[in-house]
Amino acid sequence: MNDDAHGLRRVLEPPGVLPQAATRLDTSPEIASDEVRVDVARLNLDAASFRQLRDKHAGHGDAIRDEVVAIIRTRGKMHNPVTGSGGMLTGTVTEVGPDSTLGLRVGDKVTTLVSLTLTPLVVTDDLTGWDGLSEQVPCTGYAILFGRSVAAVIPPDLPTSLALAVMDVCGAPALTARVVRGYVARGLSPTVCVIGGAGKSGSLSLAAAAEAGARHTIAVVPTSAEVALLDGRDLADAVALADARDPVALSDAVAQADGPADVTVVCVDVPGCEGGAILCTEQGGTVIFFSMATSFTAAALGAEGLAADVTMLIGNGYVPGHGEYAVSLLRSHPGVRALFEARLQHETAG
Amino acid sequence: MNDDAHGLRRVLEPPGVLPQAATRLDTSPEIASDEVRVDVARLNLDAASFRQLRDKHAGHGDAIRDEVVAIIRTRGKMHNPVTGSGGMLTGTVTEVGPDSTLGLRVGDKVTTLVSLTLTPLVVTDDLTGWDGLSEQVPCTGYAILFGRSVAAVIPPDLPTSLALAVMDVCGAPALTARVVRGYVARGLSPTVCVIGGAGKSGSLSLAAAAEAGARHTIAVVPTSAEVALLDGRDLADAVALADARDPVALSDAVAQADGPADVTVVCVDVPGCEGGAILCTEQGGTVIFFSMATSFTAAALGAEGLAADVTMLIGNGYVPGHGEYAVSLLRSHPGVRALFEARLQHETAG
Repeated sequence: MNDDAHGLRRVLEPPGVLPQAATRLDTSPEIASDEVRVDVARLNLDAASFRQLRDKHAGHGDAIRDEVVAIIRTRGKMHNPVTGSGGMLTGTVTEVGPDSTLGLRVGDKVTTLVSLTLTPLVVTDDLTGWDGLSEQVPCTGYAILFGRSVAAVIPPDLPTSLALAVMDVCGAPALTARVVRGYVARGLSPTVCVIGGAGKSGSLSLAAAAEAGARHTIAVVPTSAEVALLDGRDLADAVALADARDPVALSDAVAQADGPADVTVVCVDVPGCEGGAILCTEQGGTVIFFSMATSFTAAALGAEGLAADVTMLIGNGYVPGHGEYAVSLLRSHPGVRALFEARLQHETAG
Repeated sequence: MNDDAHGLRRVLEPPGVLPQAATRLDTSPEIASDEVRVDVARLNLDAASFRQLRDKHAGHGDAIRDEVVAIIRTRGKMHNPVTGSGGMLTGTVTEVGPDSTLGLRVGDKVTTLVSLTLTPLVVTDDLTGWDGLSEQVPCTGYAILFGRSVAAVIPPDLPTSLALAVMDVCGAPALTARVVRGYVARGLSPTVCVIGGAGKSGSLSLAAAAEAGARHTIAVVPTSAEVALLDGRDLADAVALADARDPVALSDAVAQADGPADVTVVCVDVPGCEGGAILCTEQGGTVIFFSMATSFTAAALGAEGLAADVTMLIGNGYVPGHGEYAVSLLRSHPGVRALFEARLQHETAG
């Protein structure tokens, strides 16, 4: 193993841990021979992290901004100490070490696909261009990418905000497609249920499931407004309206939508969905947890208590080629693109 | 979904929740067609629950006993309202509904492998045979198992304490074997690394991996005392001494023991092992997390941060036939049995 490829040299405290586990990173602008420096234009805070900050500060933007600035200054990275999550960033490559294998060139507009929780980051404008009220944080500063990092060049033909929104959740459709293809390779065409099907990772996962060979797709959404959002989008074969935190209501709703599911994909960042996801999945099926609000013990003990023989996957945000795949889904599914654009407009408006 | 399989019919308050979440269960002795009634011989209170009761009542056995009797009477189950935990029970099957699929027969001595927090229970002796001073509660009464419950027949030729210790961790070897068999079915004989290989679930998982077709097994242990414990047990092809919380040290030690691993099994209940487990696993490999100390976000973001294309499984405590399988491993591997007996002796002494 090349230690430097994972950025161990950037770890200040505690010594010897990986950058993600570190409480403080070295943010020196000088890059090692396999590193890349990026001028940062924008941070995308992870949804769970932003919600925690917003709730803690009762929606006061200034207090939220001050805390984010303090976290970055103290830790040398945007790593929410409560949620353990971060987000991603976009910017422009300013220097590429001679031994870098990321394939980037100076001037490339890129987005990182590894978490901010392990990315050395310096903010030089105190985030004064941000009102603290949205996950999108305009920012001046720089970040360092390691030898083995993941960054994608932003497709020039897509609006940056749209490309970013897609890249941000690109692990979910890639892993969903892989799991569905595994079923298809065994001669089974699965029913796939996506909890949070009207969201970003959810809608992409629905498109991925269909493309990978799902027999039937079910979108679970919590409100009739979201049911309406899916109307005419051609994203799911069936839509189920249910509170995913209510296991019985959820599994009943999924059953009525021609469930149970062979594969259930949890894409809502709300705590307490583990039991319902397990209960709406067929024996022998698979649950993929992408929500950062997932409790490991609730999932493990929940399945045991229900005598549920289900394979439960921790949604790994990295699958080779995931960024390009997600962008290709957006291009080939107008319904997904329309949904993303509607959400982006709503976020900007709200 | 068949609602009755999860015992929803036994829920009295609040209506509509799963039995585990209920505040009161229906304990009628008449069984439904898929239920089983068991004459209870002993309750094993969960350690956290017993500790809370003992502390609350300053160690007064009579008061502890009175409260346990009151909880069972009020709730219809042994569900400690403070800790939220229960325990398990042993007893003898007295009636089996015609539609039961648990495979039990009248007269079987069984232990439940689902929690007491969801098991309808009636105590008829006011627990007078118990001094209130230990987690082991001799008991007269009955309990109800649902259609989809988990109970294992206690092997008549094994000491009950040994059988219970094996049953307690039986999910790990069963899932390990299933994952290894999946590799073998694809024509691959994997290298399997078990972190915590000298423990109960770890030693069983090593035996399971070998039996399921692993090419090479590596036990990771944290101390030279545990290295010695494995000596001559014929449990692993190689033993690696490393602190699993140190990713770099761990992956180096596993590499020296003929790693990296195709399958890594985490069996130590210590926080902070996620990064190391991911780092010592080959790209394309699998990590199975059995430790209840696993952090979902640390695993998900850790893999992403390392650009590690690994499949990460939440260790489900339920796999059909897991109890019998674990007992069979104990029988066929004298090294595993010796290790369990040494640990039980140590626990009794301590």
